[in-house]
Amino acid sequence: MKKIRVAVVQMEVIPGRPDKNVKKIIEKIREAKKNKNNIVIFPEMAAGGYLIGDEWENESLIRNLMEINEKIREESEGIMVIWGNVWADFEKVGEDGRVRKYNAALIAQNKRWLDNGVFKGHTFKTLLPKYREFDDERYFYSMMKLANERKVNVEELLKPFEVKIGDEKIKIGLTLCEDMWWENYSVNPTETLVKNGAELIINISASPWTWRKNNKRHEVVKKILLKNLVDFIYCNNVGIQNNGKNIFLFDGSSTIYNSGGNLMVTAKPYNEEILEIDLFDEKSVFEEENSEEKDTRELYNGLIYGLKKFFEQTGIKKAVIGVSGGIDSAVSASLVTTVLGKENVIGINMPSVFNSGLTKKSAEKLCRNLEINYKIIPIQESVDRTINQLESNGFLTNEMVRENIQARDRGSRILAGVAACIGGVIINNSNKTEMALGYTTLYGDMNGAICPLGDLYKWEVYEVARYINKINQRELIPKEIFGVVPSAELSDKQDVTKGKGDPILYPYHDKLVRAFVEFRKDPKEILEWYDNNVIEKEMKLEEGLIRKYFKNRNEFRKDLEEKWRIYKLSYFKRIQAPPIIAVSRRAFGYDLRESQNGVFLIDSQL
Amino acid sequence: MKKIRVAVVQMEVIPGRPDKNVKKIIEKIREAKKNKNNIVIFPEMAAGGYLIGDEWENESLIRNLMEINEKIREESEGIMVIWGNVWADFEKVGEDGRVRKYNAALIAQNKRWLDNGVFKGHTFKTLLPKYREFDDERYFYSMMKLANERKVNVEELLKPFEVKIGDEKIKIGLTLCEDMWWENYSVNPTETLVKNGAELIINISASPWTWRKNNKRHEVVKKILLKNLVDFIYCNNVGIQNNGKNIFLFDGSSTIYNSGGNLMVTAKPYNEEILEIDLFDEKSVFEEENSEEKDTRELYNGLIYGLKKFFEQTGIKKAVIGVSGGIDSAVSASLVTTVLGKENVIGINMPSVFNSGLTKKSAEKLCRNLEINYKIIPIQESVDRTINQLESNGFLTNEMVRENIQARDRGSRILAGVAACIGGVIINNSNKTEMALGYTTLYGDMNGAICPLGDLYKWEVYEVARYINKINQRELIPKEIFGVVPSAELSDKQDVTKGKGDPILYPYHDKLVRAFVEFRKDPKEILEWYDNNVIEKEMKLEEGLIRKYFKNRNEFRKDLEEKWRIYKLSYFKRIQAPPIIAVSRRAFGYDLRESQNGVFLIDSQL
Repeated sequence: MKKIRVAVVQMEVIPGRPDKNVKKIIEKIREAKKNKNNIVIFPEMAAGGYLIGDEWENESLIRNLMEINEKIREESEGIMVIWGNVWADFEKVGEDGRVRKYNAALIAQNKRWLDNGVFKGHTFKTLLPKYREFDDERYFYSMMKLANERKVNVEELLKPFEVKIGDEKIKIGLTLCEDMWWENYSVNPTETLVKNGAELIINISASPWTWRKNNKRHEVVKKILLKNLVDFIYCNNVGIQNNGKNIFLFDGSSTIYNSGGNLMVTAKPYNEEILEIDLFDEKSVFEEENSEEKDTRELYNGLIYGLKKFFEQTGIKKAVIGVSGGIDSAVSASLVTTVLGKENVIGINMPSVFNSGLTKKSAEKLCRNLEINYKIIPIQESVDRTINQLESNGFLTNEMVRENIQARDRGSRILAGVAACIGGVIINNSNKTEMALGYTTLYGDMNGAICPLGDLYKWEVYEVARYINKINQRELIPKEIFGVVPSAELSDKQDVTKGKGDPILYPYHDKLVRAFVEFRKDPKEILEWYDNNVIEKEMKLEEGLIRKYFKNRNEFRKDLEEKWRIYKLSYFKRIQAPPIIAVSRRAFGYDLRESQNGVFLIDSQL
Repeated sequence: MKKIRVAVVQMEVIPGRPDKNVKKIIEKIREAKKNKNNIVIFPEMAAGGYLIGDEWENESLIRNLMEINEKIREESEGIMVIWGNVWADFEKVGEDGRVRKYNAALIAQNKRWLDNGVFKGHTFKTLLPKYREFDDERYFYSMMKLANERKVNVEELLKPFEVKIGDEKIKIGLTLCEDMWWENYSVNPTETLVKNGAELIINISASPWTWRKNNKRHEVVKKILLKNLVDFIYCNNVGIQNNGKNIFLFDGSSTIYNSGGNLMVTAKPYNEEILEIDLFDEKSVFEEENSEEKDTRELYNGLIYGLKKFFEQTGIKKAVIGVSGGIDSAVSASLVTTVLGKENVIGINMPSVFNSGLTKKSAEKLCRNLEINYKIIPIQESVDRTINQLESNGFLTNEMVRENIQARDRGSRILAGVAACIGGVIINNSNKTEMALGYTTLYGDMNGAICPLGDLYKWEVYEVARYINKINQRELIPKEIFGVVPSAELSDKQDVTKGKGDPILYPYHDKLVRAFVEFRKDPKEILEWYDNNVIEKEMKLEEGLIRKYFKNRNEFRKDLEEKWRIYKLSYFKRIQAPPIIAVSRRAFGYDLRESQNGVFLIDSQL
């Protein structure tokens, strides 16, 4: 058995800050050397970050990152270093006509670039993801394209590095992230590397967390390894990275698998740490847990981590939240308070004549429980004056107009004003279902620097709320807030004391939104489910729910088309929505890319 | 000489409305038949549109578009029809794991799919653009990837269709859009097709207009044809298509080139029309004009067309504009009035104590000239009350806070209120330089359903203003508005009557923003220009301007880094900006993709 000790560095990568990242890389190399490791491994794009948008086109940055590669090589005296960074070929162009860039894994030992017979000191990502938030094809030239250009099979370019460690020789195959998720591509880089002699696979990743992705990864790796029988190291970064509209959570969860595809050791999610292990010692094997409680815990931890890092990276220290007495603002306020500290959060209740004593009391109780600064700033006088000023200029208001005036008075006059006064930001409390169905007012409750719940359906908001109370071992979020009917309280029609609320049937519409957004279904397909009597099964609805809400097919279809229409048309609001933390399999923003087009209904189809 | 008569249909394609597009396609086929054409040609993605975002993932839509292909084939009795649409292979997946889709050119004659020995009735786009607004790799499988999968050279898949027209036989090579812009790729599809026998190339496109792109196209085609000596038909659509954040102008400008690469006939920009021509009759040759005046005319026409189509597609019929007496709102108001009609536009001046009589008078004069409804709605009282309400709750304001309260009072209280009352929208008046340098207030002057000038530098706003007065043969935009110093008039420091205005040196900062945004330069490179004494040349600045503004290198560098810092940090506002009509080589939004990261300054680099 070969004796090789590796250090897998699960580090936080700060996008756009190569100065900070390279400093950390060098520290960790020195630490790994001190601990007698033979190999030290860093994640994909560890130097400059991964999601940095079109900054990839900045040649000055690319030159800086290439210099960093040399600097890291210089640090490899007495150890082998493997890391991810851009590798640029200044003699050639990419398909965008700019300097050609590769998403590369670099490898150096004793200050020398290692050679695999094809490349010296590096190899490239073969499979470039371009779905969801990923834009690899936009920025990087792939190994596939290089093979086409050289008119060779890509298999000829995927060679392991044969390296010496003490007296041992070992052939290491390097892959990057998507290379392991090969099933939709015409080549399997891992298998190719093993065929070409690799005895150990190291995959360096910058892989954002999504719901149950880690379990899926274990399955994928196991399937590959059962066929190829090599040890497999997965090194992922922690931190957050964004594309403006979405904030992605990098949970790390770096893992070392034995050649049977079993987990030998795994790093804690969102934790900066170094996994150190003697390879090929296959004893310690454990199973990953899988439960609904774990899902909620991961969701909660992800939100807390995302907020923490977002505030850190943007320098936000104080926040103001409109607390309405409803569940969304209660969860938002609780999350933000946990992250910023109670002395840095202000909860403001802004009643008009339509707000009930019930919700006002709940809002106050919540803020008392959270021990945050609480203010009541009424808006009715200002709203009345605005209505008067508009009407005296000949602009007549109707009920809907007056509802939105309230929302904007809260969002743009009070909350934005308070945020500016305290040098802080507004927290947006919208959930995903509201965002989808346009049940929000632009420049009103759509305001904010971040929307923590924008990728959570209403039922998930309740789940997180229950989880918060559970880990606090008390009713931090008062039970009245769980009991009240969801309502905007903007008119008599939304009187919660009479049990009146939003025009959304959450138990069904939550799932309908998921069908539109995540399953990519349109009304035609959903109506087919209805007609085939499989709708409750396909949409994972409570049995009998559809019959409860809709008397017949016509009613069902009318609501379906109406919701689709609103979903499509309200995109004009989402264009101007704040950043959303992505936690589902499809978040509004850069993850789900929309166009502002007309509505295309069932009858318009052929 | 072969006798072939072709009809090139420059049609408006409405994205997301296949029902409307297919109706038009069928009409035009019948018209072309009536006019004894042998071939009728439609643009790329003529059935469903091109920029429809992630709707491409909707399987129901794809099935509908495939049915449309059969429907169009059915119409080909007595004529050959060539059109662009998606072609799906339901047996295979794309690299995203979804149904495999190609961006295809389809070809049928006498109700039969034509065959080129490789494919029956279609061929695929070989080169997929993925820069700027383009996301072809996200949605479509390319001919390159298919060749890789089949393990053949792509040259073997690029075959012309040998077709019969009367007694004539001709080999037609079909390409799609980017296939002709081949220079950064490893294969030239046009040349390959000619090598494989093509005697005529038909390129169907969905190609958005950008500044001088048509002239560039003529050069690219000429270069290809001088080498390959075939006639070349370029069929592009008109209309607008968007990706939410950006609206792209499709100008058509369909052209038929003779085998020498000269223009034989070209369609009017933004005009729905059919070019009919007897091929291989090479007499009528003309030269395209090229001048600065043409640039401004094209810019103006593009903005008018973009607004017209945007309002049409979104059903917007009325608009409200804040008119400040400055140049941006004057140009915005003029454009929108031209499109919506004077009876549908309301100009509102919203003075606080800081607004001068000078600008108030200019605003009024402008609205009188435009003959639009004009209102003065003062905001001082409301602003004072807001300040009082905040301060009485313990939130102290400073000058900047009070400035922004004015802006939000205008945007979210008055303009949004008026827009709601009239069932219309707000027009956002920001220009590109302000957008870049964050010189706007979120939920204030950043509000709007569309931002017509968001991709114009300040100097372009003046150019368009002068052009508007020229075509109106009078001072529609009053000359005082050209004369006043650009100012937000939000405090004493911005008193235009004392010549005080924005903290932006437009003659230089306009170009600096262009260097950041379009040339993709960072402070390090710009400082190198300064040090090498080439900055005025590189940035196309007036000679002596830099010395005029900055006494020495330190002053220059301080301003440079400050502007870069603001440019990067103010992205948080652009995330929530309204849609912008893209007219430059790089527009904020989906065209230029940004991340909200920290600022990386010169000294942080290695």
